[in-house]
Amino acid sequence: MTERAQAAPGRRTVIGAGAAALTTAALGVTTTAQAADRNGGHGGHRLDLPVPTVIGHRGTSGYRPEHTLGSYQLALDMGAHIIEQDLVPTRDGHLVCRHENDITATTDVSAHPEFANRRTTKTVDGVSLTGWFTEDFTLAELKTLRAKERIPANRQKNTLYDGRWEIPTFEEVLRWADREGRRRGKPVWLYVETKHPTYFRGLGLGLEEPLAKLLRRYGRHRAQSPVILQSFEPGSVQRLARLVATPRIVLLSGAGTKPWDFEVSGDPRTTDDLVKPAGLKWMASFAQGIGPTLDLIIPKDAAGRLTEPTTLVRDAHAQGLVLHPYTMRNENTFLPADFRRGTDPNAYGDAFGAFAAYFATGIDGIFSDNPDTALLAAADFTAKR
Amino acid sequence: MTERAQAAPGRRTVIGAGAAALTTAALGVTTTAQAADRNGGHGGHRLDLPVPTVIGHRGTSGYRPEHTLGSYQLALDMGAHIIEQDLVPTRDGHLVCRHENDITATTDVSAHPEFANRRTTKTVDGVSLTGWFTEDFTLAELKTLRAKERIPANRQKNTLYDGRWEIPTFEEVLRWADREGRRRGKPVWLYVETKHPTYFRGLGLGLEEPLAKLLRRYGRHRAQSPVILQSFEPGSVQRLARLVATPRIVLLSGAGTKPWDFEVSGDPRTTDDLVKPAGLKWMASFAQGIGPTLDLIIPKDAAGRLTEPTTLVRDAHAQGLVLHPYTMRNENTFLPADFRRGTDPNAYGDAFGAFAAYFATGIDGIFSDNPDTALLAAADFTAKR
Repeated sequence: MTERAQAAPGRRTVIGAGAAALTTAALGVTTTAQAADRNGGHGGHRLDLPVPTVIGHRGTSGYRPEHTLGSYQLALDMGAHIIEQDLVPTRDGHLVCRHENDITATTDVSAHPEFANRRTTKTVDGVSLTGWFTEDFTLAELKTLRAKERIPANRQKNTLYDGRWEIPTFEEVLRWADREGRRRGKPVWLYVETKHPTYFRGLGLGLEEPLAKLLRRYGRHRAQSPVILQSFEPGSVQRLARLVATPRIVLLSGAGTKPWDFEVSGDPRTTDDLVKPAGLKWMASFAQGIGPTLDLIIPKDAAGRLTEPTTLVRDAHAQGLVLHPYTMRNENTFLPADFRRGTDPNAYGDAFGAFAAYFATGIDGIFSDNPDTALLAAADFTAKR
Repeated sequence: MTERAQAAPGRRTVIGAGAAALTTAALGVTTTAQAADRNGGHGGHRLDLPVPTVIGHRGTSGYRPEHTLGSYQLALDMGAHIIEQDLVPTRDGHLVCRHENDITATTDVSAHPEFANRRTTKTVDGVSLTGWFTEDFTLAELKTLRAKERIPANRQKNTLYDGRWEIPTFEEVLRWADREGRRRGKPVWLYVETKHPTYFRGLGLGLEEPLAKLLRRYGRHRAQSPVILQSFEPGSVQRLARLVATPRIVLLSGAGTKPWDFEVSGDPRTTDDLVKPAGLKWMASFAQGIGPTLDLIIPKDAAGRLTEPTTLVRDAHAQGLVLHPYTMRNENTFLPADFRRGTDPNAYGDAFGAFAAYFATGIDGIFSDNPDTALLAAADFTAKR
């Protein structure tokens, strides 16, 4: 009646050795679990999450300035199953939550005259950027800034909360998750991404070691810890696999693109290779899933409309990998063209139609800026199965 | 850190006999509690709610079609302290949750050809209305309808949820509140209004008796039950006071207006009389508080800007009455002119500025379509005191 996906009985993601001991058919994860068993499991990983899993993208970035405690809190309050953090380092080696090290658009840094001379141009993963960068600030300096809405032209209402929250450190988020987990009597799941890990390692600011240290300090370094680690660089995921047992997924960018660590190491493979069975099998040797862009699940035509699904869901499941594609947003401008309604790009289109199309492919979860909508859509999908 | 008003220590509303036994100064409610004590208390009523109390107006009508279980659920998830229901009757005497018996704007009734002949014109409390009315439908018939956004031109995003939820009965809401209360380990507070009670009594559909019966059935008929009853008709509040011990407030419309039961009975008093000490003293003899329109707290000038606060907060507190004025909404078009920002009437203005101005008057709570914003504003106010 209240359509809370959490309350609904349904499929849960269970991977690997742990799954083999369960009646997988009854759990409805036959394909995934059997495949994982074929591959010898993944070190006993078990993502005990509802399926489809609703991932609060940067918290609730549809409603709050992204990557703030306010954004994470609302995601949790709305019932998101797992909440995303992106990690970048400070000059003094602390991990903070920002989608990019370039914080020009997501903080009030440009209004701080004392930091005017930190504005600079640098090349990050081959892209030239001009602005302010976290690696040029100490944590104490960053803490004097306040977060603001990244895309105010699209999300004016979120600007109401500009200036309200600090840039959170990842450790603050771990403490918040512990506190909220105790209060609710169940763990708060975190979905943690290393951003530009090769670039930062080149600056002497490797991300994986301090991340692993924090995960160990907060008891989230185990195969069954309520955390999923993610990176667009397979090398970072492999490095994390050597440091902690925490579950991991490899993010995949659009067709034809190449992970930056492949670019640097001369690995010739692109996303096109990684989504083929050999590429998937390789990723399954060090990760439990993939996070492809939604276009790799259902490509769009020249007009931006959805075409036919690819075989990626079937092929990844055959390798025991779960799929958590990104990103669903309710606004017309971000929806496939077939789900836009009316002429206002920032009005909501038929988000439920788009969610239904993606869920129907068999994906295991989805990143969404609007986890409340995603939860209702997931409940619809579960009820119809 | 997470700015949840619930977590913050602070003032709580404590009225009457129960309060007298407590160290009222330490609770920070000296004025209210002492006055209540002077008046001999109100039958041991104790509104154990944080102050300022955030009242989810029609649930979360800023984000969902109003008076749906989806709207109430989100209000609860967001942390609203108490959630409002408006009650109107069906032809067969069931109480359902709608802001008006005219359901033309809030349901899809006009798209149901089988009900085309129910469209009619009637006079409700002296106002001629044409449309579809709950008292002309059985509950079974109403249950075939679906709720939709009342003001889609202002709140396009809410239309995403059109057609998703039924009209809830009040009994369904009581069951939902019980279930959620058990799940959370603390009671879910409800703020329940009788709509047009004299009009409906004239049709043989008196609201107070079936409401009292339901409150007794669900154990919410006591002085300390987690319910506040409300009506614009003092006679309905008095009738409820004879039926149940549940706390009660009298709603007050704009200056110069008159409650409809006064109109019918020939009582010459208007709101102007009720907000004077004699009127407040009279209401304090059968109610624990008042729910004035915000303009009675801070009147607006001809340009729609806030002027100086009236003495109503002080005068009502002197009679032991709490004040829960209505309604704060984040959109420019609904804000006092001094808090509007930019030219889009449906964009958010400086809602935090408006909340701060109203909280500064000493009100005990506020009805808001945006309880999440109200909670952050209440936390700001509490932190600064």
